[in-house]
Amino acid sequence: MSQYKVAILGATGAVGQELLQLLAKRHFPVSALRLLASPRSSGKSFPFRGVNTPVWAVNETSFDGVQIAFFSAGSEASLQWAPAAVKKGAIVIDNSSAFRMSPDSPLVIPEINWQHVRPGHRIFPVGNCTAIILMMAVAPLRRFGNLRRLVVSTYQSASGAGARAMQELLDQCKSVVEGRDPVSQVFPHPIAFNLFSHNTPINAEGYNSEEWKVIQETRKTLDSPELKVEVTCVRVPVMRAHSLTANVEFDGPAPSVEAMREVYETFRGVELVDDRAANCFPMPSLAANRDEVLVGRLRRDNSNPNAISLFACGDQLRKGAALNGVQIAERLIAEGQV
Amino acid sequence: MSQYKVAILGATGAVGQELLQLLAKRHFPVSALRLLASPRSSGKSFPFRGVNTPVWAVNETSFDGVQIAFFSAGSEASLQWAPAAVKKGAIVIDNSSAFRMSPDSPLVIPEINWQHVRPGHRIFPVGNCTAIILMMAVAPLRRFGNLRRLVVSTYQSASGAGARAMQELLDQCKSVVEGRDPVSQVFPHPIAFNLFSHNTPINAEGYNSEEWKVIQETRKTLDSPELKVEVTCVRVPVMRAHSLTANVEFDGPAPSVEAMREVYETFRGVELVDDRAANCFPMPSLAANRDEVLVGRLRRDNSNPNAISLFACGDQLRKGAALNGVQIAERLIAEGQV
Repeated sequence: MSQYKVAILGATGAVGQELLQLLAKRHFPVSALRLLASPRSSGKSFPFRGVNTPVWAVNETSFDGVQIAFFSAGSEASLQWAPAAVKKGAIVIDNSSAFRMSPDSPLVIPEINWQHVRPGHRIFPVGNCTAIILMMAVAPLRRFGNLRRLVVSTYQSASGAGARAMQELLDQCKSVVEGRDPVSQVFPHPIAFNLFSHNTPINAEGYNSEEWKVIQETRKTLDSPELKVEVTCVRVPVMRAHSLTANVEFDGPAPSVEAMREVYETFRGVELVDDRAANCFPMPSLAANRDEVLVGRLRRDNSNPNAISLFACGDQLRKGAALNGVQIAERLIAEGQV
Repeated sequence: MSQYKVAILGATGAVGQELLQLLAKRHFPVSALRLLASPRSSGKSFPFRGVNTPVWAVNETSFDGVQIAFFSAGSEASLQWAPAAVKKGAIVIDNSSAFRMSPDSPLVIPEINWQHVRPGHRIFPVGNCTAIILMMAVAPLRRFGNLRRLVVSTYQSASGAGARAMQELLDQCKSVVEGRDPVSQVFPHPIAFNLFSHNTPINAEGYNSEEWKVIQETRKTLDSPELKVEVTCVRVPVMRAHSLTANVEFDGPAPSVEAMREVYETFRGVELVDDRAANCFPMPSLAANRDEVLVGRLRRDNSNPNAISLFACGDQLRKGAALNGVQIAERLIAEGQV
């Protein structure tokens, strides 16, 4: 099996660290690994397969010889460095939102829309974490008919705002437990024992940019430009798994619970957790550090004969980010596109 | 002003304690206060207006001479003792679900449906906490047209499960922060850094009993037996304020954001928190220990011209329980019905 020269830009962040672990755990065919970050983070080092690997400041020569580059350093860095990496011959798997809506890039979840990949593609954006988890929960239902409208509410973990946000949640909990006031530095509001509307700018229509991403990306990934999507994104004091409720309306009558369960039981990347008797459904404590997106609370909507409701939960750093990127790279390798 | 002999059954619980504080804070006209509980909790005592007040085990003579009895000891206790208290001449304000759907009892939120109260009524159930907060957020919108359908997702605090659940959340956070495993005794799953589908039994249609209460009580309170309601109830690691998203569909076109803001700015018991520029919306840290239900994130639904979305947050122990009960009693007194 061929081996590849791999780079990770944003190696010190929460997604970068998850990428590092997944490449080792999944025996990704790495011949050489170059860890990259902003000058601020260079000088650190991390073990990879037992070898201490330094983090370099990204520059014009960083991508020389690199065949596969994972980016997770934010949109600005992706816009600056992705074209350079492609020019040097690399394919770029980009965890930022920079190229997601570009007509030149497919927005791929391998289990759902691999057919969007074309031979000339070089930049592969990884979708918004909430959108990916929503897609994994909703896409399997398309075999029951055309999807008409989704109404979604999210319960998003601190990891979506990065490693410092996760630490802030822990620190604030410690403060509250010890009777001190929580200090907010990463989030605009306290996150411990609290929750708040996603802290991204609100557009003229009243949607924050997280919600707008979910709406747009869902349509692109599902190849359904007319799909109606309503979503409210909320941050909750959970460490690293995102949850969501989805009300899914079809063009025609909703499927039975039994039929849905059968579909989820065989759909790759999804795990059905739907035990009514034991009152056990998807939750972050079950989904964290897992590859699968958990789906449950399946029921026909009593308010609409064409709709169903579900609850889903997935690890934001895994399927919501790093894992989906690694899966794209693995599939490109398997198909000889690298 | 007349003074009344008042009893609190369930005085040692989270709602009972909140009642005790509200009666003092609101200068409720109490001539004598009798604190009651199960035999297990009797023997304790609590200060009321500077006087140490003992808790007695409830029995056949507990309601002798009582004019106003607040019940918050669960449905079983309400079914057992409410008829006895009424027979002794008391009116009963009941925080359990025992009488909520009874055709002989109105399900009253004073700001919304006081007209449901009739002279012969003696038992006044206080609605489910989530239903009350939802009603406070949704009822003001009725002036824009007939409500057709609500799609709701909740973010429910530990207080909804009582004082022991609140302590469990704190204890579990302490454990996690100190590197120990959280121990669950009240909830079936860890609540610290986690969330889960509301832990009440699931019916044949797939709804848990909390959701079913919200559906039924919403229709009764709004006097809209045909209103379509879909709801998913979720517990989150928050101490005492419930939050919810609501997508509200009208029979006709949705109102403008400006029109909705105007309505919320003047509706009693609601506070508009809807600052898009500052990204400040309702959240538990703003709603806890407040009487008002906070409403914001107002927007027209991009997926349905007849719908709007909102986010609401209210103190579960205040308007969601104790406060609404005290308000009912105050209004009954003001109207000479006690």
